[in-house]
Amino acid sequence: MRRTVIGIVGAGEPSEEHRRNARELGRLIAEQGWIVLTGGRPAGVMAAACAGAKEVAGSLTLGILPTAEGGVDPHVDLAVFTGMGDARNVVNVLSSDAIVACGVEGAGTASEIAHALKARRPVILLAAGTNAADFFTGLPGGERVTIASKPHDAMRALHALLALPSSPPEAGAAPSWP
Amino acid sequence: MRRTVIGIVGAGEPSEEHRRNARELGRLIAEQGWIVLTGGRPAGVMAAACAGAKEVAGSLTLGILPTAEGGVDPHVDLAVFTGMGDARNVVNVLSSDAIVACGVEGAGTASEIAHALKARRPVILLAAGTNAADFFTGLPGGERVTIASKPHDAMRALHALLALPSSPPEAGAAPSWP
Amino acid sequence: MRRTVIGIVGAGEPSEEHRRNARELGRLIAEQGWIVLTGGRPAGVMAAACAGAKEVAGSLTLGILPTAEGGVDPHVDLAVFTGMGDARNVVNVLSSDAIVACGVEGAGTASEIAHALKARRPVILLAAGTNAADFFTGLPGGERVTIASKPHDAMRALHALLALPSSPPEAGAAPSWP
Amino acid sequence: MRRTVIGIVGAGEPSEEHRRNARELGRLIAEQGWIVLTGGRPAGVMAAACAGAKEVAGSLTLGILPTAEGGVDPHVDLAVFTGMGDARNVVNVLSSDAIVACGVEGAGTASEIAHALKARRPVILLAAGTNAADFFTGLPGGERVTIASKPHDAMRALHALLALPSSPPEAGAAPSWP
Repeated sequence: MRRTVIGIVGAGEPSEEHRRNARELGRLIAEQGWIVLTGGRPAGVMAAACAGAKEVAGSLTLGILPTAEGGVDPHVDLAVFTGMGDARNVVNVLSSDAIVACGVEGAGTASEIAHALKARRPVILLAAGTNAADFFTGLPGGERVTIASKPHDAMRALHALLALPSSPPEAGAAPSWP
Repeated sequence: MRRTVIGIVGAGEPSEEHRRNARELGRLIAEQGWIVLTGGRPAGVMAAACAGAKEVAGSLTLGILPTAEGGVDPHVDLAVFTGMGDARNVVNVLSSDAIVACGVEGAGTASEIAHALKARRPVILLAAGTNAADFFTGLPGGERVTIASKPHDAMRALHALLALPSSPPEAGAAPSWP
Repeated sequence: MRRTVIGIVGAGEPSEEHRRNARELGRLIAEQGWIVLTGGRPAGVMAAACAGAKEVAGSLTLGILPTAEGGVDPHVDLAVFTGMGDARNVVNVLSSDAIVACGVEGAGTASEIAHALKARRPVILLAAGTNAADFFTGLPGGERVTIASKPHDAMRALHALLALPSSPPEAGAAPSWP
Repeated sequence: MRRTVIGIVGAGEPSEEHRRNARELGRLIAEQGWIVLTGGRPAGVMAAACAGAKEVAGSLTLGILPTAEGGVDPHVDLAVFTGMGDARNVVNVLSSDAIVACGVEGAGTASEIAHALKARRPVILLAAGTNAADFFTGLPGGERVTIASKPHDAMRALHALLALPSSPPEAGAAPSWP
């Protein structure tokens, strides 16, 4: 039984709010025993989400990199190097059970949300602007988009969307990871 | 000197307006001697754009397919089979000097516009809704987005954006291209 | 009816024999009205094949590039930018009706031959060494590999393999392609 | 500090010897605390390698799938869905610190070895035939190919190649990874 994987996407140079949300969300997701997937670079929302996840013992972070090597965030446990540039955004989405966007501040994030809708993955827009919310909820598949204000709202939505029981690391276990 | 390549993107099941625009635009672009690039499938905006282009003698249409073979629109002169699913949307964008979206009716089209902005390609939104216009013009790189109402507006914008003289097929020439 | 596409693959820094063969083969393929597909970079077998093809009026050369832009051979008429590094080798193969390897001097060429066998495309090894011939003909699918010594042998093999009549540009036609 | 990742590649329908080697190798690699990466499908060398690894408590197996979803080997802990067909072979290679081929029985395996040489990753050919050994060691980069007869030889070669101390799961630890 494979663990649930949640993709956290967002800008490489995010506003402070989105960076903070990404960190909190990374921690909350890891506390569920879920894997945090990001684009793997040492920047912005990617770095914050991984840092948050690694506050949790036994957590696992997966980074899907655009390059052929190098430049991985230090809180990524497992790096997949695609060498495929922005086409890796498709891999991020296909490999996630759901996607949370911490803001929609750039075109890269927008492409990931669009690919998620195309691939029928649920998407949560966390503290995103009105333009993004209006646009993506209005697309075919937009019924898979949930609007959330705070990381805890996003978590509630994830539980509802995935209809999956959480699988927290067992209390008292001494995790092998890292 | 390579010919200018214009990517025409849009829905597989578009509204009648967008289908009509795609066909007219395909013809107008081909009349400039420019190559029409599409996603290559025999459906919607892709098919209409290629059909329009092939009304022009000596035109060339290039289709970038998501599959490993099969299922190519009959008006595609040259088919590139990527076998990469929606990751081919990135190839569409990188291979185009500019992108025209005939409506933004689906997530696939949205992903191509987003990738175009990321890759610093100019984008023209033709007869797109307000939500799409507001969203994409508001993103970083949104200054590369032009809003157009009619195919002729899109052509004017292309000429201005590319700052390139047109290169129509010579009158009276008997083109080798079918 | 789409034109036949022949992929010519080989080293970026080939021996003189393979460079000469690639150039002759490019010309012979173009004389059939077939499209010459290469990896598109301005080097080695790719450059020689395109140069040979462009000796023929009305020829068309297609380059599938590993990068997101730049660095295209000047004899490439139509450049497809994949931005996917060596994964573009798969696209080369899938987009060709058959592959001719002008020598097997490097790992990139080897990967293209392997992908071609996997994708059930016929492969001609032109003036390749014994090791390559023994290895590839011995793989499952190796019955799709033909060994050829000279460009004219390769052409005979292509005609036999494709079982397609050639479609030379009409004599006296003034081709629209540059 | 990210864990070492070893890619195990081979046929989907291997001979019994290669299947047995893959299973033993998977176990031996996992005992080092290294991650076993495969193509992720429930078949042949991929399945055997993952099954071997999961005999070790605290092991982690990573599968890089060609499809957009579905069809994952049950011993894969973490599945990355690329949706890119055989282009995922490039991802396998780029994401591995070294590659071990359990036989070279098919074109897919050959493509992965070729991509590994191109990407300057060390390759071990385990119980491979003479044709494969002669071919790949003779290519530029062939000095990165090691010939091995038995899984233990492959392990010795990996230690030498990576010049990395092993990092076995701590004795007595109760691993969080299932």
